[in-house]
Amino acid sequence: MHAIRNVCIFGGTHGDEMSGIYLLQKWKDNPAIVKGSSFATKTLLANPQAVELARRYRDCDLNRMFTEENLESEITEGAPYEVRRAKEIKSLLNAGNEACDVIIDLHNTTSNIKLCLIHSTVGDFVMHMMNYVSSKLPQGVCNNICISGAKQSTCDLTSCGIGIEVGPQPQRVLRADIMDLQEKAAVHCLDFLDLFNAGSVFDETVVPYHVVKEYVKFPRDAESHICGVIHSRLQDNDWTPVMAADPVFTLFDGTVVLLRDAIPSEISEDDTFYPCFINEAAYYEKDVAFVLTTRCQKAVAKLQKS
Amino acid sequence: MHAIRNVCIFGGTHGDEMSGIYLLQKWKDNPAIVKGSSFATKTLLANPQAVELARRYRDCDLNRMFTEENLESEITEGAPYEVRRAKEIKSLLNAGNEACDVIIDLHNTTSNIKLCLIHSTVGDFVMHMMNYVSSKLPQGVCNNICISGAKQSTCDLTSCGIGIEVGPQPQRVLRADIMDLQEKAAVHCLDFLDLFNAGSVFDETVVPYHVVKEYVKFPRDAESHICGVIHSRLQDNDWTPVMAADPVFTLFDGTVVLLRDAIPSEISEDDTFYPCFINEAAYYEKDVAFVLTTRCQKAVAKLQKS
Repeated sequence: MHAIRNVCIFGGTHGDEMSGIYLLQKWKDNPAIVKGSSFATKTLLANPQAVELARRYRDCDLNRMFTEENLESEITEGAPYEVRRAKEIKSLLNAGNEACDVIIDLHNTTSNIKLCLIHSTVGDFVMHMMNYVSSKLPQGVCNNICISGAKQSTCDLTSCGIGIEVGPQPQRVLRADIMDLQEKAAVHCLDFLDLFNAGSVFDETVVPYHVVKEYVKFPRDAESHICGVIHSRLQDNDWTPVMAADPVFTLFDGTVVLLRDAIPSEISEDDTFYPCFINEAAYYEKDVAFVLTTRCQKAVAKLQKS
Repeated sequence: MHAIRNVCIFGGTHGDEMSGIYLLQKWKDNPAIVKGSSFATKTLLANPQAVELARRYRDCDLNRMFTEENLESEITEGAPYEVRRAKEIKSLLNAGNEACDVIIDLHNTTSNIKLCLIHSTVGDFVMHMMNYVSSKLPQGVCNNICISGAKQSTCDLTSCGIGIEVGPQPQRVLRADIMDLQEKAAVHCLDFLDLFNAGSVFDETVVPYHVVKEYVKFPRDAESHICGVIHSRLQDNDWTPVMAADPVFTLFDGTVVLLRDAIPSEISEDDTFYPCFINEAAYYEKDVAFVLTTRCQKAVAKLQKS
């Protein structure tokens, strides 16, 4: 792996996730905070129209619009704003013939996820970076999840893209603690890149991570209305192990729904899962009540700049 | 005071405050929960178009539209949806020549306000009701605030209107604990009305309440952008006393702003204030970072149905 030369930090990919939006503003006045010693850092307010509206998006979710189809095809008049903006962002990133090596995308969630690093590969470089950031934070604060699906997010614009998801923070609200944790995580990422560029050796190790087992849907009545709420024992307990017999919903009539009955796939009584994004506001429209994951680990080789 | 005959409970006055919206749905299937023994209960989804959009409002804030001007004037074509809806709600309430005696309006906030009863008068009947609800809940859970300003909210449609504000809950999220607290508060209100109708005597007493001292604005830079965040010692500490020398904001450059420097009016070093609605998402657009109140008390006479 060659040296990292260009890093881009995105805020406001979702216009109602305030930490990233205001960190960009803070860093504009205090650029030293995110200035690498050995690479250039750009910041980009990804969805300014959504930020203006203080909504997740104007026409559609920008963070699902970076598909090959959208990026390669002609933009038709009247295309959704975020389709046009995705293409614009791609050309902004590639301006000046300086390819962007690393993208860091700042997000918030209403779930009690603390700090979650989101990546789409488990390559050695990314996993060493996760491991480094996690090691700089108190035990249990930092988890990471590999979501390797359709290429569609901001992070897919480069081979090393990382989402920094921090919560709990309500949509449209800026909290000091969440902003601070997100800034710390971003700075730790940049420190890792400087260390890597300086030739530091990152020893072989084993890095834990999570993969999605199931996007668990809300319970619904015959008319398709949501008819229950996240069980109080699950609420706020992101990353706390759950098993088949654990309660996950309380229906409005008082019935308790257990995990085994909340998902279509069969699970063993002995299997342990790790829930996250529990009660994330933006996932209601996607019919996701929480994300059920399993925990894996990746043995990564020694890393040093070539 | 005569017997209470008709009660209306509003949910969804703001379309992204989920407890009321889903309580209405729950009670539709379980009407006994809110059925009085001695009065009729109606429920009303106040702003269905905003609920559909999962936004506070479609065109403008419904809870500021119940002004005499809106309610008495002709509706022009192209009037904002909420102006039209306010008029519609008024006529729905008065349908059948049965005036609505009591309105209960269900709200959520992203602030850690717990349960806050909002009223526009400090009449004996309302204050006894506050006192009763508060007495049924653990110490410190229930506060109340008198906001007597322009007549404009749903509650102003009757002489006895009460807002039940519960938080913290992010916009667009339904939490079991918040829904449960809101239902308890509503049921305690209804129990009070049944007791009153049955001739119960409510002894003379002294009821504490809060009045607004100041709507505290966010700190802003020369370009009018928000340039600071609620101080971590204030965040989540709704109703915890603050004084002139207490920190209320941290600017992005690290400067700490004290209460005395955050408000235009002069305050004494010895005065104690009670902040609430700290970091309420919907108040960003109103430029309100938190509401500063003072604590008062009202001596109320013995209450019994005449």
